Amino acid sequence: MHKTVSVEMEKDILAANRELAKENSALLKKFKVKSFDVMGAIGSGKTLLIEKIVDKLKAKGVSVAAIAGDVAGHDDYDRFVEHGIIGENISTGKECHLDAHLVEHALEKLPLDKIDVLFIENVGNLVCPLDFPLGTDKRMVVISVTEGDDMVRKHPRMFAFSDVVVINKIDLAGAMEVDPESLVKDVKKVNPKAKLILTDARHGKGIDELMRALGM
Amino acid sequence: MHKTVSVEMEKDILAANRELAKENSALLKKFKVKSFDVMGAIGSGKTLLIEKIVDKLKAKGVSVAAIAGDVAGHDDYDRFVEHGIIGENISTGKECHLDAHLVEHALEKLPLDKIDVLFIENVGNLVCPLDFPLGTDKRMVVISVTEGDDMVRKHPRMFAFSDVVVINKIDLAGAMEVDPESLVKDVKKVNPKAKLILTDARHGKGIDELMRALGM
Repeated sequence: MHKTVSVEMEKDILAANRELAKENSALLKKFKVKSFDVMGAIGSGKTLLIEKIVDKLKAKGVSVAAIAGDVAGHDDYDRFVEHGIIGENISTGKECHLDAHLVEHALEKLPLDKIDVLFIENVGNLVCPLDFPLGTDKRMVVISVTEGDDMVRKHPRMFAFSDVVVINKIDLAGAMEVDPESLVKDVKKVNPKAKLILTDARHGKGIDELMRALGM
Repeated sequence: MHKTVSVEMEKDILAANRELAKENSALLKKFKVKSFDVMGAIGSGKTLLIEKIVDKLKAKGVSVAAIAGDVAGHDDYDRFVEHGIIGENISTGKECHLDAHLVEHALEKLPLDKIDVLFIENVGNLVCPLDFPLGTDKRMVVISVTEGDDMVRKHPRMFAFSDVVVINKIDLAGAMEVDPESLVKDVKKVNPKAKLILTDARHGKGIDELMRALGM
């Protein structure tokens, strides 16, 4: 019986989230803010990729904000602010993902009329964020070769439902004895339409290609 | 209102899990199986650490089984079986953690009278598994230096409630520009009692120390 109630509850929660996501989307569109949900395992390099994109956007006079989502702490938020990005921090407490409701409140605090691009960095894992769209224009998932070569096979849904897939830290592929091409093959199998970009964020490689994939 | 119902539901689910975990624990003790819940981010090296321990245990004539928990696929299960380990696979579908109920069914399929040591490799992330004890003797969490230096600050609870903490891939600390000592410091802050082991599983370093920490 618990199982049945729990499944019904889950449906309600997901439906409520989708409604709020639509409202977030409408609000962001009203203010002409381009928005991205940045998902991916912890340590895959999400924060650094955002920082590298911001460096290039700043040079063009584009104003960027970022919402940092984590279970606890404010490490990513601090990094954003130190990088001159308009930041908001969300601590989820025990939850393994952001949701549209949490983002709605963060949006209330942001000066949307002054923002061109918004990155929302989700909680770092390849499972939970997927079912909770936040209302962004695009969803992007980041993995790194240091996580091994079985990431995609273990989390096919995460890759099947993302618009952009980034394989990061390719400079370490040799040291890790991981072949990025096998990851590429797995991604193409579950999502042939995804834009697939290989990056080495630390050394600034692949950032231009990623920005094109995000429509920048 | 949703929130309240949901919190009550969660309490029920967690209480039910704890009861089943006690039953698993009793069953494992009855058959004198030493058991370990192996948690940690994806790609942190959980599977390889288990394989390295098994190599040493085999030489001593100790019989080992492993349950591989993943959202999808059977990559880890295949690795265990190829390694000569008695294996069981659990696909959680969409769930980001194993639970005592899933493990109960896996235990039914294992020849417990022939097993001395059981590893249960949980789904790879640092959030969800914590609240669902499985009934094992000890809980161990694995992180790697390739995930950056903010792992512990982002997930204090996971480290606060683990018996053994492993910091893996220390051979890559230099290449990653991560100082393992800063991770050690963070772990000691949230859990001064945890046994803390630094390993380089790929090159077999720290395995003896880890086995001692697990009481082997």
